[in-house]
Amino acid sequence: MGSYVNQEYFDPFFGNFEKHIPLSDVEKRIISENLKCMDVPKNTLVLSQGSKVNTIFYVVSGALRAYHLNEKGKESTVMFAIRDWWITDMNGFTHQDLAQVSLETLEDSKLVGLGYEVLESLLRELPRLERFFRILFQRAYIREQSRLLRQLSMDVAKRYRAFVERYPNIVAAVSQKQMASYLGVTPEFLSQVKNK
Amino acid sequence: MGSYVNQEYFDPFFGNFEKHIPLSDVEKRIISENLKCMDVPKNTLVLSQGSKVNTIFYVVSGALRAYHLNEKGKESTVMFAIRDWWITDMNGFTHQDLAQVSLETLEDSKLVGLGYEVLESLLRELPRLERFFRILFQRAYIREQSRLLRQLSMDVAKRYRAFVERYPNIVAAVSQKQMASYLGVTPEFLSQVKNK
Repeated sequence: MGSYVNQEYFDPFFGNFEKHIPLSDVEKRIISENLKCMDVPKNTLVLSQGSKVNTIFYVVSGALRAYHLNEKGKESTVMFAIRDWWITDMNGFTHQDLAQVSLETLEDSKLVGLGYEVLESLLRELPRLERFFRILFQRAYIREQSRLLRQLSMDVAKRYRAFVERYPNIVAAVSQKQMASYLGVTPEFLSQVKNK
Repeated sequence: MGSYVNQEYFDPFFGNFEKHIPLSDVEKRIISENLKCMDVPKNTLVLSQGSKVNTIFYVVSGALRAYHLNEKGKESTVMFAIRDWWITDMNGFTHQDLAQVSLETLEDSKLVGLGYEVLESLLRELPRLERFFRILFQRAYIREQSRLLRQLSMDVAKRYRAFVERYPNIVAAVSQKQMASYLGVTPEFLSQVKNK
């Protein structure tokens, strides 16, 4: 098979698939024709709360943050994503509903975007992809359930330490304020916890 | 096709699948041969924290609660499940690891149990099931992400009202203490919130 124009994006993208399912060159070509490769500068919104969710993003490099602003202006960080992760507002994407979160780049980022209609038709055309996304969502579910368990059962200091151990690369990319809004505390409180 | 022995269990069970994928009678027969139908009295543990997770449960009738005890003896309710829901310790089930939660029946319950090895081999034999479980886990992921968003961005009164509106059947089945441990507050605090 010939080389792809966007090898730099496609190699890690298909590498992510091939952790769980085999893909032929023909299948890769079909998929790659429908992808959008994006080079996004730091501090750019790729999705705005309240807008329609068209795309799920695979992170080739860089880092992103999903956050929600409530009616009082309080900001909550819902998730981070770094190299080799997938991210979107999954409710809005799945139900073609409005976004409850905004997505911003924390660093210059290279992303692969997969549109809603494109993914739906790829799943019909290449049913093998169902297995990949089944595993992806099963793991995402586990991750969220574990986070909720920590949120309910651990104090902030423990949760912070667990996060640092698990995701040192994310800690390096985010501000104290963003980290605090992920843990559900004020930056001042997180600062006290870290100083102990 | 002939009738199944456990029609009372299998009808709703396959009905749940058929919301998302078609199943032939042959496929249903293959699947049903590997299921475990259970009639479980109220207040019974079907999974204990710290034990191996062998089974994912489909709830035909009744109600269940998943909870975690931390080292200080504090109990956190991670999720509830009622009629037509699926429940297990998904981390333990997927990675064949020890359970972080216990699962107890809140009412007399009829359950269909699907073993880990059985599910893995069914997914290989009937790849069409991948689509069903992809959709199931995608929705479970959305549900957990939405709950986390509420946990971070809404106060207890709002979260309680949202839960009552969304799941009146669950509210009817659970104690004030269980509800409080789901919302991450003390029963006394929830009582104050409800009295306002």
